[in-house]
Amino acid sequence: MRVRVLPRVPRSHRPHTTSSSLRPHCAPFPKRTHTCGALTAADVGSRVVLTGWLLPERKGGKLLSFFPLKDSLGTTQLVVNQPEDAPNQPSLSDVPVESSVLIEGTVLARPPSAKRSGPTGDIDVRVDNFILLNPADANLPFLPSNFRNVANEDLRARFRYLDLRRSALSANLRTRSKVAQAVRNILHEQDFTEVETPILLRSSPEGAREFLVPTRTPTAGDEPRFFALPQSPQQPKQLLICSGGVDKYFQIAKCFRDEDGRKDRQPEFTQIDLEMAYVSWGEQNTSSSRSNVWRIGGTEVRDVIETLMRKIWQDIEGIELAQKFKVMTFYEALKLYGSDKPDTRFGLKIVDATAWLTPEQRLAFDSRGEALECIPIRQSQEGPFVDLSRQCAFDPPLERVVLTEENLSLWLSQSSAAGGASIERQEDHINENLHLRLGDVVWLCRSPKVPRGGSSPLGQLRMQLCELAQAAGKLSLTTKPHFLWITEFPLFTRSDGDKEFLARGRWSSTHHPFTAPMWQDIEALYSGDVAGVRLFFTSRIGIHFAPPHQVRGQHYDLVLNGVEIGGGSVRVHDADMQDHIFTNILQLSEQEKTPFSQLLHALRCGAPPHGGIALGFDRLMTILCKTQSIRDVIAFPKTSVGTDLLFKSPTAVSEKVLEQYGIQPRR
Amino acid sequence: MRVRVLPRVPRSHRPHTTSSSLRPHCAPFPKRTHTCGALTAADVGSRVVLTGWLLPERKGGKLLSFFPLKDSLGTTQLVVNQPEDAPNQPSLSDVPVESSVLIEGTVLARPPSAKRSGPTGDIDVRVDNFILLNPADANLPFLPSNFRNVANEDLRARFRYLDLRRSALSANLRTRSKVAQAVRNILHEQDFTEVETPILLRSSPEGAREFLVPTRTPTAGDEPRFFALPQSPQQPKQLLICSGGVDKYFQIAKCFRDEDGRKDRQPEFTQIDLEMAYVSWGEQNTSSSRSNVWRIGGTEVRDVIETLMRKIWQDIEGIELAQKFKVMTFYEALKLYGSDKPDTRFGLKIVDATAWLTPEQRLAFDSRGEALECIPIRQSQEGPFVDLSRQCAFDPPLERVVLTEENLSLWLSQSSAAGGASIERQEDHINENLHLRLGDVVWLCRSPKVPRGGSSPLGQLRMQLCELAQAAGKLSLTTKPHFLWITEFPLFTRSDGDKEFLARGRWSSTHHPFTAPMWQDIEALYSGDVAGVRLFFTSRIGIHFAPPHQVRGQHYDLVLNGVEIGGGSVRVHDADMQDHIFTNILQLSEQEKTPFSQLLHALRCGAPPHGGIALGFDRLMTILCKTQSIRDVIAFPKTSVGTDLLFKSPTAVSEKVLEQYGIQPRR
Repeated sequence: MRVRVLPRVPRSHRPHTTSSSLRPHCAPFPKRTHTCGALTAADVGSRVVLTGWLLPERKGGKLLSFFPLKDSLGTTQLVVNQPEDAPNQPSLSDVPVESSVLIEGTVLARPPSAKRSGPTGDIDVRVDNFILLNPADANLPFLPSNFRNVANEDLRARFRYLDLRRSALSANLRTRSKVAQAVRNILHEQDFTEVETPILLRSSPEGAREFLVPTRTPTAGDEPRFFALPQSPQQPKQLLICSGGVDKYFQIAKCFRDEDGRKDRQPEFTQIDLEMAYVSWGEQNTSSSRSNVWRIGGTEVRDVIETLMRKIWQDIEGIELAQKFKVMTFYEALKLYGSDKPDTRFGLKIVDATAWLTPEQRLAFDSRGEALECIPIRQSQEGPFVDLSRQCAFDPPLERVVLTEENLSLWLSQSSAAGGASIERQEDHINENLHLRLGDVVWLCRSPKVPRGGSSPLGQLRMQLCELAQAAGKLSLTTKPHFLWITEFPLFTRSDGDKEFLARGRWSSTHHPFTAPMWQDIEALYSGDVAGVRLFFTSRIGIHFAPPHQVRGQHYDLVLNGVEIGGGSVRVHDADMQDHIFTNILQLSEQEKTPFSQLLHALRCGAPPHGGIALGFDRLMTILCKTQSIRDVIAFPKTSVGTDLLFKSPTAVSEKVLEQYGIQPRR
Repeated sequence: MRVRVLPRVPRSHRPHTTSSSLRPHCAPFPKRTHTCGALTAADVGSRVVLTGWLLPERKGGKLLSFFPLKDSLGTTQLVVNQPEDAPNQPSLSDVPVESSVLIEGTVLARPPSAKRSGPTGDIDVRVDNFILLNPADANLPFLPSNFRNVANEDLRARFRYLDLRRSALSANLRTRSKVAQAVRNILHEQDFTEVETPILLRSSPEGAREFLVPTRTPTAGDEPRFFALPQSPQQPKQLLICSGGVDKYFQIAKCFRDEDGRKDRQPEFTQIDLEMAYVSWGEQNTSSSRSNVWRIGGTEVRDVIETLMRKIWQDIEGIELAQKFKVMTFYEALKLYGSDKPDTRFGLKIVDATAWLTPEQRLAFDSRGEALECIPIRQSQEGPFVDLSRQCAFDPPLERVVLTEENLSLWLSQSSAAGGASIERQEDHINENLHLRLGDVVWLCRSPKVPRGGSSPLGQLRMQLCELAQAAGKLSLTTKPHFLWITEFPLFTRSDGDKEFLARGRWSSTHHPFTAPMWQDIEALYSGDVAGVRLFFTSRIGIHFAPPHQVRGQHYDLVLNGVEIGGGSVRVHDADMQDHIFTNILQLSEQEKTPFSQLLHALRCGAPPHGGIALGFDRLMTILCKTQSIRDVIAFPKTSVGTDLLFKSPTAVSEKVLEQYGIQPRR
């Protein structure tokens, strides 16, 4: 049969500027009846109106040609009988690749033997008529349909509207939308109220790491004044709960952080943010030192998040998660995995060998506040890692030695010695305690007795060994996600480099200053034994929580496969305690305290005990979509240095415009 | 029975700073079992643990006292047996009003004769024990529970966390959350994908009315560079649809507009934003001049929005809306109601009386491009408005006259004459045509034949009469919402004052430059008969659409009870046409066109025909919550001059901070 071109607009209605017959169709057209990517054998025989993008022709023969037609859901094969006798009739072969077309046709069954792969592989669509809705330029920057040769990332970022035509990316956007909706449905079922909090918020006096927004000054010469974009809706959500107007708040919230470029961070990001009134403060009797126990408050928040995750994994992955996720204290995580976000999908646990040293050696360690930690790599149990441990160099270099009495002494005196080693002798009683045999490898590290920061050298080694083993095909991690709660973080720490310019040598809140202490540690909070002043009590291996001499916070992090996907806490609801933390512990000046004045006052208005959490939605989606880059789950992401190659921003602004805000470029 | 106070934390765990027994409870407490505002007769006999805020005591008698306990859902009455014999025991009477308390008690039935009003009026709760969770200061800025004496707006804004404790406000927040979720559910059911678009977007060269965001400069002395916050996600959403990755997009999106203070506008606001690929371009044969016909494209968008509104009104109000909303052209709306967002809940339609003038008079009108319009106020039909029309003065003053031949001539020569008048004689044939009788009033106005702008003087008069009649109790508008689509707006207009600084005498897009012309008007778009160059053809009363000599856009506004709650359009998908509009009609410079370069190129990549709409979510919620102020449906609103009294922003920022962005205050 012949392909007939549908009637077009009368000549008089066409633009006068283009002469080609390949011009956009700006006139009525038939209504689409089917989605080309969703056609199935059930549609065979139907007359259909389809729309989509034309992919490169696959020559079928002299009288037949085949064109894949693509829409957001998938691709269908069009079959066209070549019009031999109408040379002036436009034909699909004349239409440039990636043009938008409307097809009227009939769904045909393919013989079972000729079934193509993919969901629409059962059928073809015979083209009866078509309309060229919008032609694509003959020279596109790249062809999104070319799976074999994906363009480089910069080019794809500049022309994101072409890149999003790739099915992999558009499927991620659909999954993201589906997950967000699942989250909202579950939280609504549990009587949460979604409340929008301000984006134009208040700048704090030392406002770096936040984005500022200048406001127009009423009269020339006025001092410029600024809003700031929120790093999180922390204060608004706490004020909301303090108000009592909302009992259970949530928001899928946009947040902003003006950080120096980091891999997989975006200056604007999304979090699933929630806060609840009357969350528990733990139990009266929780002196147990058992592992896998949630000793802090906030179990209501924990329950909500575990329900969310179970439902999402059920919906998206069809995986049934455990009814309760595992729990580990910060201390236990650092001692066993050298990380506050341990990947528990594989072993390589750290062992504290200090107790097996000679009394003199142990004294030397104790006097430095240090412990001897090691990761034994036994051929019998850690087989995949033995060769890797022997051959590879690790960064940062670890202090390592052959585990003999002599070399151990050597190592103790040479703190900077580095180098991997296999076990050559077995007499050493440490080797015995570690069940090491000839040919096994042991990694050693002198570590502070009080775990510091987010990861230790042995923790980093663990992750590097895992990556190498995966790359070498020696390790394949379970597809079942490993969720883990980390609790009982120290409430205060010395700040990391990122925030040191704010702390200036003072104590910092490990997470934020609103986190409540564990009630068992309130006395220490007031008596001045704040953090690190008294050390963790670690006289024997196996105590997996820090004793209350150090103030621990009611903070919980949710870790998934070694990635921190969220964190939250029970908050301080006692205004005097909050003021004590601001004034006496963090030693904030009056000016630094100003941005918190409304929260302090809200606490004095009968605020209920409350707590909450925030999950990084972009990271969660990256894991769910099984992609490596956060940019694959964001429609219009920024580059790793925070610029936008598509919109070509940020941009310069004329001085005349800046004038309205009372600012000017700095000379 | 006696009220027992539950065990507290050991003395050693309490803060040392407060000596009063009224200190916050920072220790474990029992889990809440019931919501006090949701208790019913079904709970009678239950042991309950409740939480909430204590309201002022209502004295019951010598041995009994009554306390209302409030949470976000409502209020329940507590009954306390006075402890006579334990003077040192803390009692609820000692607890300051608005303190947060936990109550253990038993639900009691009230005798039917003693039923109080409200949902929990059937029951009381006898208090067995209580915990003071957090005391409120004795001197609060105001008492949110005092319904009779609501504090002034400024005070309430400063202490929004107290104001939100009022049930009226918290109910609005819950309704808002419920409506947003209904919107999302309906759109997901219709295969829409919610996609987040960037908040840090690109500044346009003449970037006023937008908020800027300075970025940190890599090295000192670099030119400062800025992002801008989006006034709407217009470009990202069109790019998304052009990409083909998403077929049907929506987002409940945050938008930003840096406008001078206007009543009921907020610098940040929320819109329900959607966009669809392959929306229709109308019908081939739509020359009909009938009223209530949708002659443009975008019917798919119309269907989605009507479904949304029907579902929302059903869910929230229990009201069944019409299957199809009424449609009116821009021309018809201006001619009949003097407004492009007419309130059709009452009459007072405008009549064009030009045709009834003498031939000479008509010629005089025609030569000025004017028409004689009037609103007749007949005692027989517009009874409630007759006295108001006689007595009241209106702003702006209208040119009015007694409708006699002599006075009409007088009026024609005295363009500034003003004054209301009743009909004294009835001979005049205009009076006959208008069916006016002695004692009736007629409002007259000389109007441009081509309606201009959003409302005419008679349109404003109509609304003022309506307000006065309502205030005087003479008119009560139907509770059934009047939805109305306005279509066929002129595509280009002379800009209003707000944007004139951008237009500088050039034509402006009535809505935005991406709106497609009606296909019938494409020739005029290219031939230069753009807008207002040829006039509307209005030779007889009754033609309610503008003929195609003027370019009309495929734009649609949704009007509800005289309030524009949304607008959208079919977009230009022809890159050459879009360029023609930018270059030849709007006369944009190359620099002004720069921010649109990616959209122009995306159109050249085979973009499908597309269209969408945005609904003002805050306005919609204001109507649904039956409140007058947009601030009643926003958790943390800004004042009408765009400041935040709660967070006390915007604020000054130190020069040291500004330095990082390469800017400084202007001297």
